[in-house]
Amino acid sequence: MAWRPAEAAAFFALHDALMDQDTPGLSTADRELVVVATSAANDCLHCVVAHGAIARIRARDPYLADQVAVDWRKAPVSARLHAVLEIAVRLAAQPATVTAADLDRLRGHGLTEDDVWDVGAIASLFALSNRLPHWAAIPPNEEFFLMGRVPRQ
Amino acid sequence: MAWRPAEAAAFFALHDALMDQDTPGLSTADRELVVVATSAANDCLHCVVAHGAIARIRARDPYLADQVAVDWRKAPVSARLHAVLEIAVRLAAQPATVTAADLDRLRGHGLTEDDVWDVGAIASLFALSNRLPHWAAIPPNEEFFLMGRVPRQ
Amino acid sequence: MAWRPAEAAAFFALHDALMDQDTPGLSTADRELVVVATSAANDCLHCVVAHGAIARIRARDPYLADQVAVDWRKAPVSARLHAVLEIAVRLAAQPATVTAADLDRLRGHGLTEDDVWDVGAIASLFALSNRLPHWAAIPPNEEFFLMGRVPRQ
Amino acid sequence: MAWRPAEAAAFFALHDALMDQDTPGLSTADRELVVVATSAANDCLHCVVAHGAIARIRARDPYLADQVAVDWRKAPVSARLHAVLEIAVRLAAQPATVTAADLDRLRGHGLTEDDVWDVGAIASLFALSNRLPHWAAIPPNEEFFLMGRVPRQ
Amino acid sequence: MAWRPAEAAAFFALHDALMDQDTPGLSTADRELVVVATSAANDCLHCVVAHGAIARIRARDPYLADQVAVDWRKAPVSARLHAVLEIAVRLAAQPATVTAADLDRLRGHGLTEDDVWDVGAIASLFALSNRLPHWAAIPPNEEFFLMGRVPRQ
Amino acid sequence: MAWRPAEAAAFFALHDALMDQDTPGLSTADRELVVVATSAANDCLHCVVAHGAIARIRARDPYLADQVAVDWRKAPVSARLHAVLEIAVRLAAQPATVTAADLDRLRGHGLTEDDVWDVGAIASLFALSNRLPHWAAIPPNEEFFLMGRVPRQ
Repeated sequence: MAWRPAEAAAFFALHDALMDQDTPGLSTADRELVVVATSAANDCLHCVVAHGAIARIRARDPYLADQVAVDWRKAPVSARLHAVLEIAVRLAAQPATVTAADLDRLRGHGLTEDDVWDVGAIASLFALSNRLPHWAAIPPNEEFFLMGRVPRQ
Repeated sequence: MAWRPAEAAAFFALHDALMDQDTPGLSTADRELVVVATSAANDCLHCVVAHGAIARIRARDPYLADQVAVDWRKAPVSARLHAVLEIAVRLAAQPATVTAADLDRLRGHGLTEDDVWDVGAIASLFALSNRLPHWAAIPPNEEFFLMGRVPRQ
Repeated sequence: MAWRPAEAAAFFALHDALMDQDTPGLSTADRELVVVATSAANDCLHCVVAHGAIARIRARDPYLADQVAVDWRKAPVSARLHAVLEIAVRLAAQPATVTAADLDRLRGHGLTEDDVWDVGAIASLFALSNRLPHWAAIPPNEEFFLMGRVPRQ
Repeated sequence: MAWRPAEAAAFFALHDALMDQDTPGLSTADRELVVVATSAANDCLHCVVAHGAIARIRARDPYLADQVAVDWRKAPVSARLHAVLEIAVRLAAQPATVTAADLDRLRGHGLTEDDVWDVGAIASLFALSNRLPHWAAIPPNEEFFLMGRVPRQ
Repeated sequence: MAWRPAEAAAFFALHDALMDQDTPGLSTADRELVVVATSAANDCLHCVVAHGAIARIRARDPYLADQVAVDWRKAPVSARLHAVLEIAVRLAAQPATVTAADLDRLRGHGLTEDDVWDVGAIASLFALSNRLPHWAAIPPNEEFFLMGRVPRQ
Repeated sequence: MAWRPAEAAAFFALHDALMDQDTPGLSTADRELVVVATSAANDCLHCVVAHGAIARIRARDPYLADQVAVDWRKAPVSARLHAVLEIAVRLAAQPATVTAADLDRLRGHGLTEDDVWDVGAIASLFALSNRLPHWAAIPPNEEFFLMGRVPRQ
């Protein structure tokens, strides 16, 4: 039982289109932290550990991914990223409560139309991605637990 | 602001790989009802209306989609489909509670390994798909509200 | 096992006193939509289908009942009716959170004292009415599923 | 703003039909405790205090109403009444989860068809009754706080 | 199985340091009402009954403890105490939602730094204390049910 | 604003009495994992990070603390520890649902009376301890994020 090749190709096409962008309003590190916060809301170990590792590397910060995973509300992030995480986690956990006013709030923090769409699309894509490891009991790769916690030599 | 062409192509590739299968353990009508039940759990009008219409046509039943959308627990479905809906809705709403025992229960109802995977993958794909209409306020097409409710002539 | 004659008479006396009023602040269509929204919050198929049909007829709109049932937050209704539905659904699902400030908000939208009372009394009456079909597994009549969806000839 | 005379008459007709029965499977004290447990689940001070007083008198027990109001699960009641309270509180708080199997469980504890119906109808009637004091901020009468706590002389 | 002597001594040292203070911003009665409200949120009969009795005596009010236990939102308390109870119950039930803005709100109602700390510490201490009676099925002493309800002679 | 010296002394007396025991039914590592699981249920970064570090060291396992923090249900632990974590997290998040049957289940896994008490007392103590960092915005010490993740040299 496994993600079939055509499905996997489609998933990674979606993934790369959303995650490999680096914009002033939504950096690659910000995008990984959206994944970490929403994946933690869904209790998905695979995604918290893998994307926590990438977030540590992209944000060049060994602590921030854990802070966002356990309690994004009190994590030391900008007001802009705090709003992004608040709305993204709400889309993950209580999707009907997200309204046009939330998107306007993101625009007020300087996100472009593309950035705004990407916040929603990333949270939505990982709503999918978080559920497959629960379904098929897929653990993270062990190297991700440590990656980005100590300086490379 | 819109689902970009490459993203849309990837989404529909995933969609068609999962929904256009008709197996003894999980018919096309069953698959649509999984979408209806999980989309209702996510309060997604777009998906409830569009896939409700397709479910009515595929199940050749003008009532079942509404019954499943409002309260799948008491809908007149087989014990097999009842188990499918119970586990799929749980993956949609409380994903961490799904365990290997749930998948065994589906196998016990005659689902093949492919069928079992598809239940989880459909509920996961619509966890994605349900959130985009909330994000971008996308309404359903009006013709879906009525489709499948009256016999074609 | 059934609603006994004296109980049924009392129930319908309450029902008719609340639902058969048509005021500028709370039309008969609005009252039916309060029933639809709160009944959907309680997953009551019987009431969603029966009162959805009446709402379609009274509102002369084939779509609005489904829109309110699945996600009243994004339904195309006036600011007044949006406030009515928000507070009514909260009374249905989290009654302790309703306060005098909510009633003032309804007055601010032009509801009279009688209209304000009726919003609360309708949501409360269907808190009763929604639970009996769950208790006794009472399905809706089949003709309600289609009623009001196509123009009468 | 008040419960109008015709509505009040209808409400009390329902109330008396359900509460003034004393059967082996569901005594008048048991009925009051169903009200206390479900009203506490709805945070309704008016009903907890008034029906707590009546329950103390009918059960001839100065402690049981408070025990049931705060935590019916650990209250010193029979297995029969424990099942009644568990299912009644579930109908109050999560009505869709009640199924025919729950009613069979009540029958297994010796409740007649009338008793079973009354459990559901009482919990449903107070789903209505609990919401009106939240809506209109109706406090309990002060004499109920103490009634039944000390022996009459 | 019991709270061991050294543990009990430590618990009561904490308890007395927090509860036996009487300040303008947080009286001993206020402190007991924080215990009543948060213990009710945790369904702890032992603490609701024992500290309800003490609250009745310290507030010289036979009704207030029951009002706060069942629905603190509508209890007749000052705006200051209403804010204290709202934030304390949130710390009890949804601790991550408490932020520095909540503490500022308490300061705005005239609480000193010590008072503010004590609100959080009392709610936290009874988060501990409420769970032990659930764990070990510890009932309240019977004399607390009546204490403070009738004038002493 | 800070935990005062006498309070801190009392807290650590409780802490040490519960955590510094190593029994066949509940090792020091098991006790730390109870803290990690319940602290994660309360979104407490301070406790998840500090006690995650100690758990890694005591369990001599660099992965287990993260696995338990994000999803204890699927963590690779014994059936005994799985039951301990399930009941401890329930006491943390839904305390009224814990009953004598849960304690019997722990006895059935070989826990002594002292071990059983300690499970409840540890979950209860950290119900207190988790709330103070939310109240006063207390971050973990930075060295705990990495501790126990790499072998000591």
